[in-house]
Formats: sequence, C-alpha cells, structure tokens
Amino acid sequence: MDDKLMLMIPGPTPVPEAALLALAKHPIGHRTSEFSNMMGEVTQNLKWLHQTESDVLMLNVSGTGAVEAGMINFLSPGDRILVGSNGKFGERWVEVGQAFGLNVEAITAEWGQPLDPDKFAQKLQADTNKEIKAVIITHSETSTGVINDLVAINSHVKEHGQALIIVDAVTSLGAYNVPVDALGLDVVASGSQKGYMIPPGLGFVSVSPKAWEAYKTAKLPKYYLDLGKYRKATAKNTTPFTPPVNLMVALHTTLGMMKKEGLESIFTRHERQKNATRAAMKALNLPLFAADECASPAITAVATPGMEADKIRSLMKKRFDIALAGGQDHLSNKIFRVGHLGFVSDRDILSCIASLEVVLLELGHENFNSGAGVAAAARVFSN
Amino acid sequence: MDDKLMLMIPGPTPVPEAALLALAKHPIGHRTSEFSNMMGEVTQNLKWLHQTESDVLMLNVSGTGAVEAGMINFLSPGDRILVGSNGKFGERWVEVGQAFGLNVEAITAEWGQPLDPDKFAQKLQADTNKEIKAVIITHSETSTGVINDLVAINSHVKEHGQALIIVDAVTSLGAYNVPVDALGLDVVASGSQKGYMIPPGLGFVSVSPKAWEAYKTAKLPKYYLDLGKYRKATAKNTTPFTPPVNLMVALHTTLGMMKKEGLESIFTRHERQKNATRAAMKALNLPLFAADECASPAITAVATPGMEADKIRSLMKKRFDIALAGGQDHLSNKIFRVGHLGFVSDRDILSCIASLEVVLLELGHENFNSGAGVAAAARVFSN
Repeated sequence: MDDKLMLMIPGPTPVPEAALLALAKHPIGHRTSEFSNMMGEVTQNLKWLHQTESDVLMLNVSGTGAVEAGMINFLSPGDRILVGSNGKFGERWVEVGQAFGLNVEAITAEWGQPLDPDKFAQKLQADTNKEIKAVIITHSETSTGVINDLVAINSHVKEHGQALIIVDAVTSLGAYNVPVDALGLDVVASGSQKGYMIPPGLGFVSVSPKAWEAYKTAKLPKYYLDLGKYRKATAKNTTPFTPPVNLMVALHTTLGMMKKEGLESIFTRHERQKNATRAAMKALNLPLFAADECASPAITAVATPGMEADKIRSLMKKRFDIALAGGQDHLSNKIFRVGHLGFVSDRDILSCIASLEVVLLELGHENFNSGAGVAAAARVFSN
Repeated sequence: MDDKLMLMIPGPTPVPEAALLALAKHPIGHRTSEFSNMMGEVTQNLKWLHQTESDVLMLNVSGTGAVEAGMINFLSPGDRILVGSNGKFGERWVEVGQAFGLNVEAITAEWGQPLDPDKFAQKLQADTNKEIKAVIITHSETSTGVINDLVAINSHVKEHGQALIIVDAVTSLGAYNVPVDALGLDVVASGSQKGYMIPPGLGFVSVSPKAWEAYKTAKLPKYYLDLGKYRKATAKNTTPFTPPVNLMVALHTTLGMMKKEGLESIFTRHERQKNATRAAMKALNLPLFAADECASPAITAVATPGMEADKIRSLMKKRFDIALAGGQDHLSNKIFRVGHLGFVSDRDILSCIASLEVVLLELGHENFNSGAGVAAAARVFSN
C-alpha cells in the first residue's frame, strides 16, 4: 500500500508529523537574528538532553562524521588509543583511528557479546606511563543490539586519570540514560536520525573541559571537522559553515517534544519497548542475538536459525509495509533487527509483533502458539 | 508580514514548493531498492549537470566540506599547491591547505578584483620540476560577486600538465557554464543550497580519472571525507554512511526541474538577471563592487558610499520581507549583496529593485530618478 511505510529500523527512525512539516518550511537565512534565537534554544535543549553544562556542537555530517570529529580533534599522530570493537561500528572506529595514523589497540568481543570491562582495566592499569590518550567505546552497537557497559569501562578510564573517554552514543542518546557530566564523559557523539526523531543529516558532539585541554595540543589535521570553530561560533549562536537550516528547524520542534515528555519517560519508554519486543521474540521461539543483560534499548537483533532472515524482512515489507533492518557483513541474512528507537509507540511494537506472527506462519515457521508473541508483549505493556 | 520572506541571498536560495513538499515526505530506509533506484537517477542527473562522464559524488557536508574533500583526497603533506585568493572563500581554501600541512602559495587579488591568470602562468611555467600538485580556484567568489577566469587559469594548468585543477564551483555550478569534461576540470565542488534549489546539507564533488590516479598515492588522512568510499558506494547506487535522505528526495525533484528547463536556459536566465540587476544598480547610482567583465552570474555586490549598507538591508527586510546579504569581514556594512541564484524569477528581480528604490528614498538617498532602476531592468528583460 502506498504511503503506509512503518520504519522499524535503527535509522532513519520515524519522524513525527510536526517535524516533517517543519522540514517543509522555507529555509531562512542562517546569518539572521531569527536563526540565532532558534539556535540558542536548540543548543540549550541539546545540553539538557546530554545532561551537561559543557558544549554540545552541531555539525552537518552523519553519525560517522560526528564520531570521527570526536576522535580527531583531541589526538595527535601516533597517539595510543584503545577502541572497543564488538560490531560493525566498533570496527569502524578502529578503521578511523588507523586512517589517521593513531596507534590503535582494539579491545574485541564477538559480535553479539558485550565488551569485557576487565580487558580495558588490564590495559589501563598496565599503562603506568600514561601513554593511552583515549578510550573509544560504542555504547549501543547498532549492528548487534548489544549495549556495552559504559559505566564500568568509564570507571576504569577514570582510574587511569589521563585518557579521554570518547563515546559513540549514536543509538543510545535519547534512548538510554547517558548522563554526560555525572559520568564525566569527555566526548559523546550522536546523529539526528536516531533518538532525535528527525531525518539524517546532523551530527552532535559534546565536549568536556578536559577534552578541550587536549584539543589545544592535538595535531591531527582538520578544518571542516575542527570543533574549535564550532565552539567559537556556537557561543555566538551561529555556525562556522552554512548549516542544514531545515533540519535544525525540525530539531527545534522535536527537542521541544522531548522536553515535554521528559528524560525519565523517554528512557522508560525505550526500556519497556525493548522488554516487550524481547519477550515476544522469546515467545515466538526466535533466539535473541544479544543476552538480556546487554540488550540495547534501541534495537533488538533476532537470529533466524533454519530460516532466511531476509525472507522475513521481505515479506514484512510486502505484506505489512514494515521495514526491518537486516544483518550486516557476516550476519547478512542470519539476523533481522527491530528498531525501537525514537518516535516509536507501544502500538507500533504490537503492530510489528502481530505482523511478524503472520509472516512466520506464512513462511512455515510454526514453532510457536499463534498469538503468543503479542500476548508476551501485552504482559509487559500491561504492567 | 509573516511567511512572506523572499531570499535574495546567495544561500540558502529560494526552494520551489515541490522540493519543500518532497522534504516533508517521511524518510525511507537508505538500504532499500527504492532508495537505490532514486539515487541512480540522481547520480545520472548530477553527471548531466556537471557535463561529465566521470564520478559525481554526494556527501553529507556543506560546501566547505565538499571543497575540503576535493582537496585532501588528492594531496599529501608538504605538497605544493597554488590557491587563488580574492575573497573570503579563496582565503578559506588557503586556510584549509595550511591546516593540512600543504605548502600553500596564495595567488591573491584585492577583494572585488578578479584573479590574474598571468600570475598563475608565471608560477606554473617556472615550475619545471613539476612540484605544483594542484591549483585551487574559487570560480564565483560569493563574498564579492566576482567570477574568476576559470578557462584562462585552467589553460595554464593544462600547459603545466601535472597539476590538478580543483574548482570551488559552489555559486557557479547550475548558474554558469562549467563544462567539466570539455575543460578537463579534475575536481569540482559545490553545495545544495545554491543552484541546486534545495536547502543546505549536501555537498557534491566531481572527480576526473586523473584525480583518481592522484588519489592512489595521496597521503592526507581521511575517513568520513574519503572520496574513494563514496565512489565505491555510488557505483552500487548506495552511500558509505547514512545519507540525508530527505534532502536527496528533494534533490531528485529539483534536478528533474533543471533538466526540464535545460542547461542553456538556466545559464541564460542567470545571465539575464545579473544584467538586469547590474543595470538597475547603475541607474540608481549605486557603484557595483565588481566590474562588468568579472561579474558573477549568481550574486551582485553593491557598494554604498555615504550610506550604511546594513541600514538598507534592515529596511528591505522590515518593509518588504526581502533578505539581502551583507558584506563579510572588512566589507561589513560597506556593501550589500543581491543573490540571483537558483530558483529566482525575473519577477523577483523586479520586486527587489522596486523595493530597493523605496528603501533608498526612505533613507534619503535621492541621487536617482524614481523608477530608473526598474526601467533599466525592464530594458534588459524586454530584449
């Protein structure tokens, strides 16, 4: 059916009508008081969302661009860094470090497993010369639906004392508690098409005073991604380069919606929808790819032994106009991923599970009691 | 009056309603055949617009990001480059080169004057060791309304034989003839909020086979701006990172409009509106900041001796909801700039001039015959 698409992927995520209409507003000039007033409000609300008093900067880049900016602004060639790698995005930050000539040590775990904080502790405690300049962690690993133990890893970084903690929070910010100042997170990067509830095109980077100290001596080359330029401009409610005006107007709208809902409610909603989705998959006898203890609030990866995951996705799209994400790289066709991130309601979860039951039956997967998935979700939602 | 804003600035430029409505469409997943089909059409139309058979790549960046990508992908630390600098953007590319540790020689001219092609010829002819790796030119200098003689400068680069010609065509592409293959332009960078008639947020870079050869040995670090990744993905009608989906849907719309209008008509329209604007300013006894021989098709800078340019702009906005651009840096309050770039009609030019006459009278500038500006524009338009 035309115009009935329901996005249950981890980005782009669903966009509320108010934000879509904001996108359609004719752009205004970005060197005007009207724009500056709006940008000032957006910046304040970004600080609220990040739970920080420090800078939160907006860049015209994707999430990858935001994380890269979050790395290269604070490091110099040859700097030793630890990068957590247990999925496609962790692997990407290893690649970024290597591309910029950093001395990268990957702390790995299997895809689907969480990073082991002890492995970070060992490296950090052994580094008595304080050579490790930064620890880079993907908080919610979008490729596998695993959330890494940021609090534990961060505590080891804090014991080390020197290294910066740089966090890819692309699919955790706005879905899970990321209290930037309370945890002392130095750099937190995210992207607009996730918890922010607007289309892709804007990246965000928060920067702590400690990170700004490191910036002063950091030598990796940068210009468009030079966060110092953004800091200077943001202090005057402007931008160093022409910003994506329409996306910022839409962001102004959705940040207002988020403030109205409140952080606690937003986190609770994501937790509840995660629990409902996982309970349903268990009831449908579909193995969850990540364990309960490390399950991302934003995305649930589901294994499909004996079935082609892409057939399930294809039929979900064809029959019910529901877009699910597939597996990446070696997980292609082995898992599907349900996004429950951003502008997703409990009703959407029920729709998705009910539709999935039909699709599984049509594909001959009859290893569950019809209605069991919806019933399991209902138990979560009715609590 | 609310909702009556008319943008006569050189970006963001006016956006047609069809593109605004396209922006408001709910995003689709970027890893779908629907997206790939659209991207394939967009890419073909970008090649048509660039008059090239080579790659034209789309990045989620501003124009500055596009030019930076166009520089850093083809150069190595210490490489000698010539950068034309006769305005804010030329100065910016000097800064980018310096930020990346290139050996930058600026070929300068006063703001408002065109670059002298002979100065390039001298440097290039003297470089018998072929040390100059690239020549970087701002084609239309947005800050001053000067168009530089790309054809002449490029001919000297071609005589040199080794250096790449890298062009900032941000406010010339889609307004002026930039025949990429016919001229053998190696890298041409542009941005969405200009001739493309959509809001800011997308950058474009065309890359010649010769530039791809240089890419193979270029050593400046890059990841998000690594054009090789975009080339590989574009060949499969996809993107290396999450693209700004809504902007691409809007671009699909406006490129269709541009094809329907035709390149010749587009260039003629910009030329005609430039001529009308300039004729009007002369009739109003307002000095043009750039000479006729080097006047940009996209923007006309007007000096305001004895008057504060920003008072004119402010009253234009207040009385008529027309946004004009101001002077940048040392030209602040000394000039105003009229954008006639992208989705601008002859009617808009007449509106702007007629309104300007009122504003000038209100500010006591009575050194012209009332109606003379409109009459001068009318003579151009009626030919």
